[in-house]
Amino acid sequence: MCEGRTGSDGVRFRLNKGGTVVRKYLVEFIGTFFLVLTVGCTVLPGALKLEMARGVIPPLAIGAALMVMVYAGGHISGGHYNPAVTLAVTLRGKCKPEDAPIYMLSQVLGAIVAGFVALTLLYQKTPGTPAELKVVPSLVAEFLFAFALCYVVLNVATARATEGNSYFGLAIGFTVVVGAFAVGGISGGAFNPAVAIGAAFMNLIPRGQVWIHIVADFLGGVVAALAFNYLHPDDRW
Amino acid sequence: MCEGRTGSDGVRFRLNKGGTVVRKYLVEFIGTFFLVLTVGCTVLPGALKLEMARGVIPPLAIGAALMVMVYAGGHISGGHYNPAVTLAVTLRGKCKPEDAPIYMLSQVLGAIVAGFVALTLLYQKTPGTPAELKVVPSLVAEFLFAFALCYVVLNVATARATEGNSYFGLAIGFTVVVGAFAVGGISGGAFNPAVAIGAAFMNLIPRGQVWIHIVADFLGGVVAALAFNYLHPDDRW
Amino acid sequence: MCEGRTGSDGVRFRLNKGGTVVRKYLVEFIGTFFLVLTVGCTVLPGALKLEMARGVIPPLAIGAALMVMVYAGGHISGGHYNPAVTLAVTLRGKCKPEDAPIYMLSQVLGAIVAGFVALTLLYQKTPGTPAELKVVPSLVAEFLFAFALCYVVLNVATARATEGNSYFGLAIGFTVVVGAFAVGGISGGAFNPAVAIGAAFMNLIPRGQVWIHIVADFLGGVVAALAFNYLHPDDRW
Amino acid sequence: MCEGRTGSDGVRFRLNKGGTVVRKYLVEFIGTFFLVLTVGCTVLPGALKLEMARGVIPPLAIGAALMVMVYAGGHISGGHYNPAVTLAVTLRGKCKPEDAPIYMLSQVLGAIVAGFVALTLLYQKTPGTPAELKVVPSLVAEFLFAFALCYVVLNVATARATEGNSYFGLAIGFTVVVGAFAVGGISGGAFNPAVAIGAAFMNLIPRGQVWIHIVADFLGGVVAALAFNYLHPDDRW
Repeated sequence: MCEGRTGSDGVRFRLNKGGTVVRKYLVEFIGTFFLVLTVGCTVLPGALKLEMARGVIPPLAIGAALMVMVYAGGHISGGHYNPAVTLAVTLRGKCKPEDAPIYMLSQVLGAIVAGFVALTLLYQKTPGTPAELKVVPSLVAEFLFAFALCYVVLNVATARATEGNSYFGLAIGFTVVVGAFAVGGISGGAFNPAVAIGAAFMNLIPRGQVWIHIVADFLGGVVAALAFNYLHPDDRW
Repeated sequence: MCEGRTGSDGVRFRLNKGGTVVRKYLVEFIGTFFLVLTVGCTVLPGALKLEMARGVIPPLAIGAALMVMVYAGGHISGGHYNPAVTLAVTLRGKCKPEDAPIYMLSQVLGAIVAGFVALTLLYQKTPGTPAELKVVPSLVAEFLFAFALCYVVLNVATARATEGNSYFGLAIGFTVVVGAFAVGGISGGAFNPAVAIGAAFMNLIPRGQVWIHIVADFLGGVVAALAFNYLHPDDRW
Repeated sequence: MCEGRTGSDGVRFRLNKGGTVVRKYLVEFIGTFFLVLTVGCTVLPGALKLEMARGVIPPLAIGAALMVMVYAGGHISGGHYNPAVTLAVTLRGKCKPEDAPIYMLSQVLGAIVAGFVALTLLYQKTPGTPAELKVVPSLVAEFLFAFALCYVVLNVATARATEGNSYFGLAIGFTVVVGAFAVGGISGGAFNPAVAIGAAFMNLIPRGQVWIHIVADFLGGVVAALAFNYLHPDDRW
Repeated sequence: MCEGRTGSDGVRFRLNKGGTVVRKYLVEFIGTFFLVLTVGCTVLPGALKLEMARGVIPPLAIGAALMVMVYAGGHISGGHYNPAVTLAVTLRGKCKPEDAPIYMLSQVLGAIVAGFVALTLLYQKTPGTPAELKVVPSLVAEFLFAFALCYVVLNVATARATEGNSYFGLAIGFTVVVGAFAVGGISGGAFNPAVAIGAAFMNLIPRGQVWIHIVADFLGGVVAALAFNYLHPDDRW
């Protein structure tokens, strides 16, 4: 995906020089920014006027934010917006190892700026203390759905057999919807180290526990890449 | 997009004469009409029987209305239904500058007629006074999601690399769903000067504050066009 | 659409003889059956355990039911499931006039059988008396969204410029979602004479008022066909 | 579908030897695992913090889980995740009879492991006693929507006329959304023997009544295959 999703007209190969790399980072920054802005603006205390909508709206809104940004930026940067996805795509051989760290940096930067904007927009000067997460269930929940997310990404957006499809963003975004509905109450439902860092910045999850998401999400990405490579023996590169 | 989205068979080029321009304006009128009718029929006081559904239904319904109208009219007018989108598409070079003002006029007209119909349908003879918006957060919220909306539109509906996809309406409509969930409580969530004018006409936002949406939404469209042009150096025209 | 949606391989033309017509009627029966079954099972008193979900679930479920049946049967019968759509498609020249009446009959039959099954499943032996509809607003609401529905169907499923797309079912189904959210509280939100008859059979709308839906929905279909034909001067047949 | 969905490049035929069969079973295991994990994590007592979200979230989350897994695994195993679908696809001639039993075994195994994980994640040591199902309505409800599900699968994922579409996962997943909204309150809304076994394992439906789902769902699959074969006389193999 680091090379962009569609290339039928060869344009992107010409672009793959000089300024283009910066363009990819900018797209990753923009996408992660809006993803985490949506997290903040739907989850921060005071974000939703109706308390009872809290269970329904954030998963739908956050998954939809990922979906639209994947569709908008997929052809430029691959539309990762998630360091665990960048790691998985790199291990699958579709992202240059030297690009990966700056992808991740752009994502984390987008997440932190978004956290700052969300806090400002909602006048959250002194965010409360988030509830402590249970470590083992959170690790399991984050690992499972980070695996699911990276498994879906690799299959719908990098496999030769699914090339040219129109559903990749729908499948990727709604994997986050599913995960957030299923285990959002356990781990917070990040499945994405950049989102976890943004959420910790906004005090939505305890800052001392963000390692849970980072460890489990990257592990999910690694296992998903191994699974994908096993499942596609003739489609490694 | 002003030239219609699909052109594989050359038909639209033949259509681009005489009566066709009127056809485009009619499509823009119809699409914006149903978009704003949905706003009125889900947001006006008395529109929803269940007060608690107010947080969930309007964003979904309004975003879906945009989605279906984009799918229905995209091949004729480009399916803007939004003066900020028309401005962004014009700056990106896919809408003739002389068409843009009449596009915008058709959209505003559709919005006002829809406002009138919604008020009549719901017997809202004397709409109440809407709450005052906070100026700076509203400007920021409108700017951010009008940028996101135009950025998504330009990428999924005008970029050469994504041509022929089936997801453009889904991505565009759900950007509005995301924005309305995220910042609907801050600015009202228009991201569209025509919708803002229609909402002001129905007294859903203060009439004296509609300049906020007009300024911020057009600015979002301009910045999105600049970003798109920077991101696609070889796909300017 | 009466000739099926996809025809790249010519198979359907060979099928267009003898038994095939019965196949189309069967598909129309099945699709309308599940559409109206979903209406009954989500709207009948006692259908939903949570009263507060009544505003959200039926529109989503009913629109999704239409979507999946359009995708499943579109290549065989066109996936109308709606006499107003059949009329509009006939006027647009994509359904043989001699097929139309039996299409409509199959749809009404499917609706009535579904109503019977839903009443039985939910043990609704003695359905209550539905609230009287206000005639003029109901006529307007039904006309507007039946027009929108037929306008979307004609554009996404019969226009040459949108041929081969993957979004036709999404656009059609979600037009009903939008309409049901917007004016479900006014007219009941049928936009479909067969659904209206099925709903009247289940006593969800007053039996003496089903003429409102029949008149307004067919009128919406006629106007949509006129609009489509005007908008596509070179794509009449 | 047992042969994978897309084959334009011939890759899958080369894969159809040796290790590949194991790959298909693994994909079926993974997909059914996440489907049933989502069931457990949204339906088990204590799963959702907001009682009132129970009516809305599980159908959406479960249907979306099926959708994303169908998109992710469809090109490898066909993405059944449901023994009734495997039976229907076998009867339609798109799954080798010798593969079917191991498909079903993989699905049931995935469901049980998911049930175990969900119980563990939510600390459900002693699940309560589920309410008894009414036998006849449950049989009817399960039969009807298992038929609908298999009918949709066969049409959107195995018919020649719909080959290469991008909507197959959307249509399949949302058939479950529709069914769960419509008759979830009657039968529990499995439409899938593996899901029913997983649900019984988690005590979400009475263990002594899981035969209802197994009988009705397989029957629905058989009738759907008969209907499909009748509707596609020239597309049998």
